[in-house]
Amino acid sequence: MANPLTHFNEEGRAKMVDVSDKSVTERIATAEGTVYMQPETLRLIKEGQIKKGDVLAVAQVAGIMGAKKTSEVIPMCHPLSLTGVDISFEENLDPDPKNGLCSVKIKTTVKVTGKTGVEMEALTAVSIAALTIYDMCKAVDKNMFFNQIGLLYKAGGKSGTFSREKIAEA
Amino acid sequence: MANPLTHFNEEGRAKMVDVSDKSVTERIATAEGTVYMQPETLRLIKEGQIKKGDVLAVAQVAGIMGAKKTSEVIPMCHPLSLTGVDISFEENLDPDPKNGLCSVKIKTTVKVTGKTGVEMEALTAVSIAALTIYDMCKAVDKNMFFNQIGLLYKAGGKSGTFSREKIAEA
Amino acid sequence: MANPLTHFNEEGRAKMVDVSDKSVTERIATAEGTVYMQPETLRLIKEGQIKKGDVLAVAQVAGIMGAKKTSEVIPMCHPLSLTGVDISFEENLDPDPKNGLCSVKIKTTVKVTGKTGVEMEALTAVSIAALTIYDMCKAVDKNMFFNQIGLLYKAGGKSGTFSREKIAEA
Amino acid sequence: MANPLTHFNEEGRAKMVDVSDKSVTERIATAEGTVYMQPETLRLIKEGQIKKGDVLAVAQVAGIMGAKKTSEVIPMCHPLSLTGVDISFEENLDPDPKNGLCSVKIKTTVKVTGKTGVEMEALTAVSIAALTIYDMCKAVDKNMFFNQIGLLYKAGGKSGTFSREKIAEA
Amino acid sequence: MANPLTHFNEEGRAKMVDVSDKSVTERIATAEGTVYMQPETLRLIKEGQIKKGDVLAVAQVAGIMGAKKTSEVIPMCHPLSLTGVDISFEENLDPDPKNGLCSVKIKTTVKVTGKTGVEMEALTAVSIAALTIYDMCKAVDKNMFFNQIGLLYKAGGKSGTFSREKIAEA
Amino acid sequence: MANPLTHFNEEGRAKMVDVSDKSVTERIATAEGTVYMQPETLRLIKEGQIKKGDVLAVAQVAGIMGAKKTSEVIPMCHPLSLTGVDISFEENLDPDPKNGLCSVKIKTTVKVTGKTGVEMEALTAVSIAALTIYDMCKAVDKNMFFNQIGLLYKAGGKSGTFSREKIAEA
Repeated sequence: MANPLTHFNEEGRAKMVDVSDKSVTERIATAEGTVYMQPETLRLIKEGQIKKGDVLAVAQVAGIMGAKKTSEVIPMCHPLSLTGVDISFEENLDPDPKNGLCSVKIKTTVKVTGKTGVEMEALTAVSIAALTIYDMCKAVDKNMFFNQIGLLYKAGGKSGTFSREKIAEA
Repeated sequence: MANPLTHFNEEGRAKMVDVSDKSVTERIATAEGTVYMQPETLRLIKEGQIKKGDVLAVAQVAGIMGAKKTSEVIPMCHPLSLTGVDISFEENLDPDPKNGLCSVKIKTTVKVTGKTGVEMEALTAVSIAALTIYDMCKAVDKNMFFNQIGLLYKAGGKSGTFSREKIAEA
Repeated sequence: MANPLTHFNEEGRAKMVDVSDKSVTERIATAEGTVYMQPETLRLIKEGQIKKGDVLAVAQVAGIMGAKKTSEVIPMCHPLSLTGVDISFEENLDPDPKNGLCSVKIKTTVKVTGKTGVEMEALTAVSIAALTIYDMCKAVDKNMFFNQIGLLYKAGGKSGTFSREKIAEA
Repeated sequence: MANPLTHFNEEGRAKMVDVSDKSVTERIATAEGTVYMQPETLRLIKEGQIKKGDVLAVAQVAGIMGAKKTSEVIPMCHPLSLTGVDISFEENLDPDPKNGLCSVKIKTTVKVTGKTGVEMEALTAVSIAALTIYDMCKAVDKNMFFNQIGLLYKAGGKSGTFSREKIAEA
Repeated sequence: MANPLTHFNEEGRAKMVDVSDKSVTERIATAEGTVYMQPETLRLIKEGQIKKGDVLAVAQVAGIMGAKKTSEVIPMCHPLSLTGVDISFEENLDPDPKNGLCSVKIKTTVKVTGKTGVEMEALTAVSIAALTIYDMCKAVDKNMFFNQIGLLYKAGGKSGTFSREKIAEA
Repeated sequence: MANPLTHFNEEGRAKMVDVSDKSVTERIATAEGTVYMQPETLRLIKEGQIKKGDVLAVAQVAGIMGAKKTSEVIPMCHPLSLTGVDISFEENLDPDPKNGLCSVKIKTTVKVTGKTGVEMEALTAVSIAALTIYDMCKAVDKNMFFNQIGLLYKAGGKSGTFSREKIAEA
């Protein structure tokens, strides 16, 4: 029986899946993830936006550039000529009742006209944006962590549309 | 008062922090994160290890190469001549009672002899390894997600040692 | 009113502009720039061409490779499968009456069949070629500088043709 | 007689100069360059800073990341573990009497503890920041150009200190 | 007469050949190469496959990622959106009568839908896979070497099909 | 018993070997390899050197830049701040009696002051230079191939000096 993990060849080793015969279609993917942090850390991020020391502006640039790096860092990803990348941030000022932490939710949307989808590009953009927020705030809060990084939506291509309201909890 | 977020200059814009005057010391950092997935997905990963179609072997290579890419993808990170990178995986076969999902925990350790730490390299390695697992299994399970990616330990350098047993829950 | 700087999203943060709906057309761009240097420095460059120590041959390779790096170094640039890159140099042996300096003019032409133009690729190729000339001659002339790096011509795509004879003076 | 252009080997071909015997010292370099543009373009950039659509914030990130890319894009440059990179912008609102244009001056400072200097890193950061400003404003002003990109200062290393007040005119 | 080496412009300098007018077709290329090593080295590689310390699994990933790096490391290569990359290994356990060495033969296949061929991508994948085998075994066998790295087959595009059974000997 | 292939961790998976405790010493490595081609192809290369269409000048730049890319393309290689890279070419105009082919021998030397050696950098430089020669001549000779790419010499570091006159035949 064929390996349902399509990324392996007949010898059982990894390959870049052959998409030569796939159609060129419009494809889109949306992913999200959340960075948890001390309320004071979020306060410093928000204050910086007013004073121009804007952590999220740097994370935005890093995430967009990260989307373009996807096929270079994820071994079996196809190189793609992305046609659009956007990122938004949602600051959650109410501390989470479970842990007393505030958070920034990152949401990315990536588009391409091509033979394969951009799920990995959307997820990579979230990850790099999250890492950048960590990097710029780690002097004040090394306990920050990332949660629920996952795919929200994809459309275009033979496997059809995937959609969910929110990432499961764990 | 100086901005406690050290990555900003006097004009309030981002800079790469000047570490010229810091001492060259041995530095180490350990980070972890967890990829949640359907029990069937974990079964396919484990079976592949027996049959050579080894998802985790590819994720291992990707994570190590990702650690080396850190200063290229995280805007304000200093380039460093890493002296060691290692990654281990822990498969959790008992479904989480909250969501019925199994998981793979990724743990990375990075070392350097240098003027600044390798927390970001350890976290980037976790993130890239997690993304690679997602990429190689997404044909069978698009609902996978990453949780509790965070720093466990760092030592070396003026800010001293940071250590925690586990990442907080959210 | 919409921000006339198209590289910003509704939150006012930078994005990679969505070009999904644009037509795939033939696009071309030409840019130029000038490296000013001591007459003796230009003499060494010209002599090297005879003796094989060819500064401009290295700058040519660097500029072409630089064009391919554009979307990696310019944050909001779209990745493109360039279909052609060429660079030429024009040595100006008559010292400029204003400053007594000689110069090398760099001219680049880049082509693509795609959804967006290659102005940035042509300008990046000029910049990297100029930097390479500086690097290879800086042992003898640290006062070299680059002037009038700009776009001369672009065609293809909805915004039509742009053309000028020469870059303005400043 | 030895070729005064040190970047060539005995066969007359390019090499990466052997710096094995040089001392590890603190090194610094400062470079600058100017982007000329229509007064209206500068007005849009300034307005964006107020509204968060901040062209210069993106150029800042691009320039810093560009400094780290130097040895990858300039063929004979040595790879260096940079210890600091900073960039500042100076907006010149008074139109230049020669051409009626306004301008943004970019100034970069790069530091390293190493065997060779960081002049090329400072100049590359200026160039990439300038290209990014062009990219983000080209929808409204394709006539922008870059002038007087050059080295202002370097210190550290055997060749001593280089310093000038301003780049020559041309 | 035109230079039969098409990679040079009218000034005799290197260029990226203009393929704008070429047709977009399915293209494929296959290349191979052989890594010679001590019989004991091959024994360690084979044993590792059983015990999971799998040299060839790492070489497989490196070769696939190397194929994607081709236009970044080969100066005049066009960037291409590869649609498939696969690599296989053939272990030759019978020592070569000429030198008593065993060998691993690497065979790569690369596909693209584009305006130019993927011969260089197939050859680069072989080279990077061979280098990775060397890297991972050099602690026990520094005398390993690579032989007969060449193109076996290409199809698609105006220059037609190229095919040979084996690389010549030397 | 410990795995004599040092690139594997206790779980049997690949790691970047920990060199934190190694001494910083001067290290050097020399590698070589040969590109076989039709006599007519070598004639075109030599003629181009006279007319400036210099294949070997491009291969020289590519090889040097390739040496700097080593830790990016070879998964377990440590990133190193190379202190020198040089490449020379030796044209063999007498056709090989076995196959009637001429050849270009590539020889690279790489230096570093660091904790680990530069054998991989020297071998990567040979490989990238060979690939570049192939790329630039493939329009006239697709049968070219690379032979006897191997290490000639290394010194510095605990494992001592390795030296051989020539690569074995196969």
